[in-house]
This record gives sequence, structure tokens and C-alpha cells, in this order.
Amino acid sequence: MKVIDDEYYMALALDMAERALGQTGTNPVVGALVIREGELVGLGTHLERGTPHAEVHALNMAGSRAEGSTVYVTLEPCSHHGLTPPCAERLIQEKVRRVVVACEDPNPLVAGRGIEMLRAAGIEVLVGVLRERALKLNRRFIKFISTGMPYVTIKSASTLDGKLASRTGDSKWISNEKAREIVHTMRHRHQAIMVGVSTIIADDPQLSTRLTVPGLSPVRVVADSTLRIPETAQILRDGVAPTWIITTQQADPDKAERLTELGAEILRCGSGPQVDLRDALVQLGQRGISSVLVEGGGRLNGSLLERRLVDEIVLFFAPKLVGGSEAPGTFHFAGYDLMREAVSLRDMEVEQIGDNVCIRGVPVWATAEVKEEDH
Amino acid sequence: MKVIDDEYYMALALDMAERALGQTGTNPVVGALVIREGELVGLGTHLERGTPHAEVHALNMAGSRAEGSTVYVTLEPCSHHGLTPPCAERLIQEKVRRVVVACEDPNPLVAGRGIEMLRAAGIEVLVGVLRERALKLNRRFIKFISTGMPYVTIKSASTLDGKLASRTGDSKWISNEKAREIVHTMRHRHQAIMVGVSTIIADDPQLSTRLTVPGLSPVRVVADSTLRIPETAQILRDGVAPTWIITTQQADPDKAERLTELGAEILRCGSGPQVDLRDALVQLGQRGISSVLVEGGGRLNGSLLERRLVDEIVLFFAPKLVGGSEAPGTFHFAGYDLMREAVSLRDMEVEQIGDNVCIRGVPVWATAEVKEEDH
Repeated sequence: MKVIDDEYYMALALDMAERALGQTGTNPVVGALVIREGELVGLGTHLERGTPHAEVHALNMAGSRAEGSTVYVTLEPCSHHGLTPPCAERLIQEKVRRVVVACEDPNPLVAGRGIEMLRAAGIEVLVGVLRERALKLNRRFIKFISTGMPYVTIKSASTLDGKLASRTGDSKWISNEKAREIVHTMRHRHQAIMVGVSTIIADDPQLSTRLTVPGLSPVRVVADSTLRIPETAQILRDGVAPTWIITTQQADPDKAERLTELGAEILRCGSGPQVDLRDALVQLGQRGISSVLVEGGGRLNGSLLERRLVDEIVLFFAPKLVGGSEAPGTFHFAGYDLMREAVSLRDMEVEQIGDNVCIRGVPVWATAEVKEEDH
Repeated sequence: MKVIDDEYYMALALDMAERALGQTGTNPVVGALVIREGELVGLGTHLERGTPHAEVHALNMAGSRAEGSTVYVTLEPCSHHGLTPPCAERLIQEKVRRVVVACEDPNPLVAGRGIEMLRAAGIEVLVGVLRERALKLNRRFIKFISTGMPYVTIKSASTLDGKLASRTGDSKWISNEKAREIVHTMRHRHQAIMVGVSTIIADDPQLSTRLTVPGLSPVRVVADSTLRIPETAQILRDGVAPTWIITTQQADPDKAERLTELGAEILRCGSGPQVDLRDALVQLGQRGISSVLVEGGGRLNGSLLERRLVDEIVLFFAPKLVGGSEAPGTFHFAGYDLMREAVSLRDMEVEQIGDNVCIRGVPVWATAEVKEEDH
């Protein structure tokens, strides 16, 4: 049985925040609880950018019972006038006695100032309860707020010999049902899905979020250096979510115009012949995309990995061996000369999902220098 | 806390048997316990082919206290005069009251007759306590006794993108220390290690068992269709274990003679140009090799897989991505056209070993027909 303590309350606040992953845009997810003399009197979750923060919902619910209470909040209360007034001020105004914070806000506009404001007002503040979990929950937000570039997750499903498909291109089905449900959950939690145009040509996928309950479908982004996308592609026709095509300045303006007429947006990234992926991510960030789920193919995965543009890698393995040296691999790129130069994964997590295995981690490049962009 | 029951005693008998894995040659490992009126009075393990069986050791230790006892034994007591007298007779002679057996002996010379003999003599017999564990423990013996061919385990250590080495052939180091210790434990438990000659040429490995305690080094078997093995190879010089070279009838007799002079044995398998791997395994079985650990490279792994000669696959994954389409993959073979034709793994087990992941399972081929041997 769980003992009632600060972690016990913070765990619920984090669970509440987690349920809102995917709906807060470039904002973090945050949960808050108000506890007064052993009783839960308020709870709140930040729902959407531009709407009240978690603390505000929780304090509203608590009403006059907020006075003398302890407020648990998963992220440092804000200190600045953004789209909404500063939460630190509101907490002071409500005369709360104690505030427990999971982690500091990495937003340079806050970064400790919220905590300072509370302490200056005589409120007892404890920082760091379930910090690691809170940082992990908002890892996409943290990357975006500190760099302006979206957090990039590569997801792939391959055989145990690292093949995305057989030598003839057959890929139905590699992963099991449960693994596919996890992928749809990941889609819900990212603001964009990115694929290479070859995936569109080969599979004509929907790239929408399909769960047993309603889910959010992210923007579909296709990397397509020469605008090879068929005008009949589902993602240009189904209206389920916006479709953006990242291409180069060299790409055919007539094709671009026809795609625009179909409702797609064209982003020109670099002067070609290949899409400048770093520039593409910068442009996505400028358009308010703070997280991108890359769903292959191997060439896009390889290019992003080689250019060090990846923040997280999630590999599903099916218990299969399909062989074929020409069969497409998970990461198609020139490769490193030495094993010690290989990209490694840190913070690795392994999960068995029925007969599939999911291995996830954070890529770490062996050398410090970033290769100069060669296209 | 474990409750004292039949499983509690059988578990120890299985643990005792397991400790002897690797030393019983083509015989199974077996453990036995004698329990009388709640007291442990005898225990025994079969140590080596041609020496007493587990029950005999345990009964010897129990002496007159065997009368009226319960004997736990991990494999059905034998009923035939082999290299030693039948254990069923001895159990009857000792007047034991009850015999608990984990699994029947698949040896066609026994196969239920031991149990029948005991029951006919009025001894109460219970069969099937921890059966699955017992069958798994002796899976190598079971394959050998029922087919005459050795049990073949493929072990590999690759990156997460399925590469055995970088594009330049660098493979030091893929797996971590703990994974390598597990490999040495596997070597101890197999009667032969098999590698392709390219592995000898590239790495000049010792292929010996190195543990923190003494281990048994199996016969080293090199698949070498054209006798390319360098005469300076460690395994031809170090005398740690026998070295056998499997080649074809086409192979150069002069080179074969020089290798024989160095102490190697030459097995000619098929008329070439490639080693007939099925014939090689039959010949190994005839020489009393009941288990083979295949340690690559990718070409040997792929050929064995394609020819359906593999009983178990153990894949270690290091948390690395090395890339390179020419970098050697774990299973190098033509591959299947469709994903549903891929070899799948059943009874999959996943274990995280520090930052490595070990995935093991039993290969199942998608179609019933065996391809005709094409070389």
C-alpha cells in the first residue's frame, strides 16, 4: 500500500498532467492538487495553450479552502504575464501555506523566478519531488522551449534482423496489434508525424490516430525532395489532419501548386537537391510544432540520425527473421567505420509487448563535432 | 517463502542437474533426491556418461534409509541395461515407497517403460512435476536422442540495426562484459562451437570458455568450404580443445594434410562447392556431438537458418546504431519475399543485461516444405 506523503500526491498530479499530453500544443503539461488539513480540496490540469494553468483550475475548485493549504504542482508556477496572469501571484493572493514543485520551469522567462516569488512572500516551497518523472513527462516541451526546434522521436517496427520490410518491400505485418496501439498513442502525443515520400508511395498510409477512444491526429509531414508524392495519396484527400510537404527550392512549382490546391502546404527547406532536414525542423518549430514523430522509412531515419537531429528512438522488434541484404533496414545511411563511433542509446528501456519487444532510448553520438551539412 | 511440497524438492533436483550441464556428453543431465519422513537422506546428480545415474548416487547416500522413502528424479528412471544397470530395478530393490518424476525419458529405449516397471512393483509414481522446466533443461539431449543430430543454437551479438560489425569490419566491442560472460556460460553447456572461416580470418578467436571459475571448452568446428583457414590460427596452435574443420570433397588435399599435421581433423561434407551443412551436422552427431553453439558470422547463420537446421536463436543487442548497408548483418541469406514467409521465434524470452538486451526463442519456419539443398 502506498504511504501518504508528498510523492503520493505528486504522483496523481503527474498522472493528471500525462492525460493531457498531446493537447497543450507548445505548452507543457501540468497537473496541480490542493490539499488542506489532509483533505483533497482542488485539482486541475492545464488543458490547452492560452487557457488557465493547472494551479488556477485547482485553486478555483478549492475556493476559500485554498487558504493555508499545500499546493502540489508538477512544474514551477509561472512568474510572468504570458497568455494568462502569473500563477505565483495567484498562489500568494490565495494565501496558500506551502507549495511542492516537481521541477523548475526550463522556460527562460520563468527559470526559478516563480519559486523565488513564492518564497519572498513567505510561502514554504519544496522543489524536486518526483523531478525525474516530471522532466521526462515534459521532455518534448523542454527541448522546444530551450532550442526552438521540435523534439524528434524516431519510431520503427522491424524484424530481429533489422529489416523494415522483405526484399520485395512487403511489410504487412511486422508488429503486433498491441505494438500498433502504442504507436497510435505516440501519435496522439506528438504534434506532427513525419515520413519519407517513399513510405507514401509504397503504403499510402492514413497517418492518423486510431485508438479505442478518440485521439488527436497530428499534422502529417512528408519529406519529399522532388515532389514525388502522388496526387491521389490518402493524406492529400482525407482531411483528417493538415498535410505539409517539406521539399527544396528546386522542386517543380507546377506540382507544388497542384498540391497546394489539394490543401497541402509546401515548405521549401534548403536549395537542394535534398531537403535540408535541420532547416525543416527549424521551420516546423517556427510554425508551433514542438514534437515530431518520425515513422520512417529507413532513409529518412538514417539521414536524421547521421545529422544528429534525433532526440529519442523507439524500436519495436517483431519475432521474425526475413533476411535479404537488399531488404530495407531501419537506419539507411553510410554508417560509421568503427564500432566505437556508432551512435549509442542511453537511458535504455526494454519492454516485452506480447511477442514484440520495444527498446527505447536517447541517442548519443560518439564524437563531439557535428558533421557539416553535406546537402 | 516457498511451501514444502513436491515442486520444492523437484526444484532442487533440477538445480542440481543444471549444474552438470556440459559435462554429460550425449547423456541428459539428471538430479535426484531421497526424502524419508520429512528428512533429506540422499542426493545425486549424473556426472558423466558411463558413470552412475543420479538415482544411484542418491540411493547410495541414503543407504538403508531409502526404504519407504520418496525419490524425486528429474527424468524417468531408466529401464534398460545400457552402460549401467537399470535404475528402475534398483529403486524397486531398495523398497522406495514413492517416486516423483519431472518428465518421461524421450529415449526410445525407455519412453515410459521405467515408470511402468516401478508401478508394476507397487511403487506409487507421480509424473509431471515441473515437467516444462525439465524438458527445457534437456532440450539438447532430447533433440539428439530423437534425431541423431546435434541441437543447434545460433548466438549473435549485434547492434540494434542488426549489424555484426561496422562497414569496415570493426566489431570490438559490440556486447558488454556481462553478455560476454553469458556467452562463455553457453559455450560450457555445448559440446561444440561452430564458426565460419571468415570469423577465424577476421578475428583469430580462441573460441575457448573463459569464466571466473573453470569451464569446459567445447570442440571448435570451422565451416571452411575451400580450406582458407590460416595455418597460424590460434585454434590450430593453442591445444585448448580439439579443432575440426568441415569442408567439401573438393577441398585441396595438400592443405588438408597440413592441417591434419597441426592436429586438426578434417570432415568432408558433400561434394561442394559449399559445405553441406546438414551432412556436417549428421557427421557431428555420429561423432557424439549432441549440441553445437554457432557463433557466426552472418553467412553461416543465414545458411543454417535458410536450411532449417537451427533449434534455438539467442540474439544479444548492444544499444548502438552503426549503419552502413554493406556492414555485415546477423543473418546473411537471400531472404524471403513476403513478411509472412519470415522465420518467426516462438517461446520468446527477453532479458535486459545492463545496457544489452538478450532475445531468445525457437525458430519456426512459415511453410512446411523444406527447400531442396542447393549446395
